[in-house]
Amino acid sequence: MRLEGLRDKKVIAVCCGGSPPDDELALAYETGCEIARRGAILVCGGLGGSMKAACRGAAENDGLVIGIIPTYEKNLSNKYVDIVIPTGLGHSRNNLVVAAADGVVGVGGSWGTLSELSIAVKMGKPVAVLKGWDAKGPNMEGLEFHRAETPLEAVTFVLGM
Amino acid sequence: MRLEGLRDKKVIAVCCGGSPPDDELALAYETGCEIARRGAILVCGGLGGSMKAACRGAAENDGLVIGIIPTYEKNLSNKYVDIVIPTGLGHSRNNLVVAAADGVVGVGGSWGTLSELSIAVKMGKPVAVLKGWDAKGPNMEGLEFHRAETPLEAVTFVLGM
Amino acid sequence: MRLEGLRDKKVIAVCCGGSPPDDELALAYETGCEIARRGAILVCGGLGGSMKAACRGAAENDGLVIGIIPTYEKNLSNKYVDIVIPTGLGHSRNNLVVAAADGVVGVGGSWGTLSELSIAVKMGKPVAVLKGWDAKGPNMEGLEFHRAETPLEAVTFVLGM
Amino acid sequence: MRLEGLRDKKVIAVCCGGSPPDDELALAYETGCEIARRGAILVCGGLGGSMKAACRGAAENDGLVIGIIPTYEKNLSNKYVDIVIPTGLGHSRNNLVVAAADGVVGVGGSWGTLSELSIAVKMGKPVAVLKGWDAKGPNMEGLEFHRAETPLEAVTFVLGM
Repeated sequence: MRLEGLRDKKVIAVCCGGSPPDDELALAYETGCEIARRGAILVCGGLGGSMKAACRGAAENDGLVIGIIPTYEKNLSNKYVDIVIPTGLGHSRNNLVVAAADGVVGVGGSWGTLSELSIAVKMGKPVAVLKGWDAKGPNMEGLEFHRAETPLEAVTFVLGM
Repeated sequence: MRLEGLRDKKVIAVCCGGSPPDDELALAYETGCEIARRGAILVCGGLGGSMKAACRGAAENDGLVIGIIPTYEKNLSNKYVDIVIPTGLGHSRNNLVVAAADGVVGVGGSWGTLSELSIAVKMGKPVAVLKGWDAKGPNMEGLEFHRAETPLEAVTFVLGM
Repeated sequence: MRLEGLRDKKVIAVCCGGSPPDDELALAYETGCEIARRGAILVCGGLGGSMKAACRGAAENDGLVIGIIPTYEKNLSNKYVDIVIPTGLGHSRNNLVVAAADGVVGVGGSWGTLSELSIAVKMGKPVAVLKGWDAKGPNMEGLEFHRAETPLEAVTFVLGM
Repeated sequence: MRLEGLRDKKVIAVCCGGSPPDDELALAYETGCEIARRGAILVCGGLGGSMKAACRGAAENDGLVIGIIPTYEKNLSNKYVDIVIPTGLGHSRNNLVVAAADGVVGVGGSWGTLSELSIAVKMGKPVAVLKGWDAKGPNMEGLEFHRAETPLEAVTFVLGM
């Protein structure tokens, strides 16, 4: 069962919405595809909506999928998640999704997504957004999220290559 | 030692920076003052910078101050904190600051602050910002944080009165 | 509203059951009384059963009561809690109860209580038990919890005086 | 890279010490071996001592290893961990190790281990101990941990087969 070299794979988080419009679903799916094509592991919140779409994209491209969910019930994760981490931590599970990643792609999303993208920058991780949030702080103009045009560009950016 | 009615007091979080410029320190201090003057309890991250300034403001106006800190060492909290909650949760303590509050005032700050303000909106709490973050999402234009001109206005807004 | 010197008060956790037999309720109540009489702050899980009994004991003796609860809903705490810390952390909130305390008194209880007493020893805090758990490890015979005969003895032990 | 059926594998936690005597190291190693031989995934705290021994046992038998660590630094996990979940949660990460598992094997260990075994019983998971903790509660005589003689027996017990 063991996969050699798993430990050295890059892990990319997809932060996105649970009840997204259709265009975000498509972007999330394609982002999952790209992550798997690049040989990286996908991590996300493991539930439905864009999370499920991203997981499906990775799974259909032979990628490994980690889902870190807010409750203790593993079966609440979507069916494309390979490794379920049930936390029971509620909203605090968002921080664990980001902490598990080497880089973060934000796809649309709502306030929970913004919270994840923000903490990712604070943790020093590369962040790219697709159809995403725009945030401007009072003291750090220019440090906005990297705005990518395509899932390929976003994944390439956060992989640093 | 007991204070009658403490349980029914409103709790207001001040989310702000640990290494702020001087104008943010002044705003944080004044916000702390207003929270205490209005009879509310102040909760924040309990460390230095604007957090300490806000705590000092509340303490000097006979207010009660709760500090929820990221480590286990109570003595890392600033000296104006009355009740220290040491969590050992790292960045996840931010969620607890917000969860403890009935409303949130953001004073300047950086990415950690934005993360707190975002999760506050997700939790359904009123949020006002002073010299603060501006955030625009792809699907919810118009739901930005309430931009207040003064600490008095910010505190009044989140207290809903 | 502010209480001078609150920051320097000792904080004692009462770890106990949510659905206890009557004799544990009485012990928990008396433990809460003693904590308040000694001028210490009581912290506990903030819910019902022995937790509520302990909180009532402290409140009736002019003591301050902190309740750290597993959900986000403040109103799920019992009515004797003065300061509610809603965590949304599920079982992980148990660690925060212990982390907030300078010493821990265990009153009867079940497996959740044992988990709290154990982590308290690991964190280096004094632990006394009343009608409590007995635990023996494979490598550290003699390090069992201090078995107290009365609430007064238990509180005196964890206060170190 | 994807492994079919990973989602349906049983996950077994090994809870054990970070600085164990030699006999515990050997038991932990053998427990890891058995978990992998039975086709289950091993999860543990991901650090050194018995944790590392258990991970090595699983890895040498073609097993998949998840390490849930207390800090944010992935490279603090031992080299046999395939999937690192950095939490930044300190002691609270213990709950996540247990939450991720379908059953728990305790190998010797100290107070942190007892805390994990206790919360596992509370969460309703099967628990077996090797050279392990003995705990007796005031109201539930007879509910002690299952005491296994060998790693094979312990793993068989928690797998329920």
